Amino acid sequence: MHRVKVRVVEDALDANNTIARANRDDFDRHGVTVVNLMSAPGSGKTTLLEKVLGPGIPGVRTAVLEGDVQGSLDADRLAKHHIDVVQLNTDNGFGGECHLDANMVRSALPALPLADIDLLIVENVGNLVCPAEFLMGEDARIMVASVAEGEDKPLKYPLMFRACELVIVNKIDLLEHVDFDMDRFLYHLDAVHPGVAHLQVSARTGEGVEEVRDWLARLPERAGAPA
Amino acid sequence: MHRVKVRVVEDALDANNTIARANRDDFDRHGVTVVNLMSAPGSGKTTLLEKVLGPGIPGVRTAVLEGDVQGSLDADRLAKHHIDVVQLNTDNGFGGECHLDANMVRSALPALPLADIDLLIVENVGNLVCPAEFLMGEDARIMVASVAEGEDKPLKYPLMFRACELVIVNKIDLLEHVDFDMDRFLYHLDAVHPGVAHLQVSARTGEGVEEVRDWLARLPERAGAPA
Repeated sequence: MHRVKVRVVEDALDANNTIARANRDDFDRHGVTVVNLMSAPGSGKTTLLEKVLGPGIPGVRTAVLEGDVQGSLDADRLAKHHIDVVQLNTDNGFGGECHLDANMVRSALPALPLADIDLLIVENVGNLVCPAEFLMGEDARIMVASVAEGEDKPLKYPLMFRACELVIVNKIDLLEHVDFDMDRFLYHLDAVHPGVAHLQVSARTGEGVEEVRDWLARLPERAGAPA
Repeated sequence: MHRVKVRVVEDALDANNTIARANRDDFDRHGVTVVNLMSAPGSGKTTLLEKVLGPGIPGVRTAVLEGDVQGSLDADRLAKHHIDVVQLNTDNGFGGECHLDANMVRSALPALPLADIDLLIVENVGNLVCPAEFLMGEDARIMVASVAEGEDKPLKYPLMFRACELVIVNKIDLLEHVDFDMDRFLYHLDAVHPGVAHLQVSARTGEGVEEVRDWLARLPERAGAPA
């Protein structure tokens, strides 16, 4: 069974990459920079988006594509902050896909105001494994890790921490209440992804949120530059 | 692509159930009760096992099968507490399976001391979607949810919360530092899985750990009773 499954998945990844390139062409045509935002469940992605996008980023028109297995709780939260948001559910299938893929994102493109935005943030399904495997045509990937999850996560889920351009260490307001050694986390992070950018943030208190906003505002020029 | 994928996965689930029944026969032959322990990454499953199994459960000989994408960090932690543990890694394949399945558990059976234990706890890969889809021949499923993850998780990952016999709400020592309304969480939980048992625990401080130990000690009689 295992061998067959791997072959099928590799075929699926090929198809996914083909569709991701088609998405990329559409994003380029409209001059939209796209971020794939990934994390474990409950790391604070949505609260971060509320705080970062709620006040708006000067000169950057943004929208969010909200991926969830089921429901529209997060999209509803963002809409309350007057953030343009489109909901994408993954629960058709065998009980819910644990990640977004290029085809799911593609199916949402007609609902997205690509001609009127500069930055699209795709909030992926909360999961530290599969989202890292499926490109969607994005310019950059941001990974959010909460200090409540523990300092060992880069070692346990290395692909996810390797597949991103920015790691946001969130919930730093909890640092004094949990067993989390920031230096050790950053040491582990550097071991699996040497030199990756990282920001220490509390979406709840707002600490570090301005730095996230700055990083996003500067993304189009970086994404447009030769790799 | 999507339609093809669903069909393949359904075939895989059929095969999985067949292998799960074979595992079940082996567990029954040895009189071993098996628990599938599931949660999001960083919810505190391993710390909970340290606290519950470290001192031992009187009259219950236990072992742990430790599932991780990569590495043996959790198994090493448990071994320090003199807990019998076997490591199972899922990283062969296309970058790491996001769940354990019956065949992976079956591949570990020869390494497990089934003749000498009463209770096997299988610590699944941290993920709130796919682990709920793959039976492994277990008697019961326990789901750990940390208060740091937020009170909306039952609504966002309903299959996982429906697929378990016990929900452990962990990290209650953080309650005063996070935005988590326990009543609201339990209301959401009851909406997706009416009447499911739940325990409020802090694996870190030890609060509620004795209740978990009691629940596990009483599991064999419940599992042996007609459904």
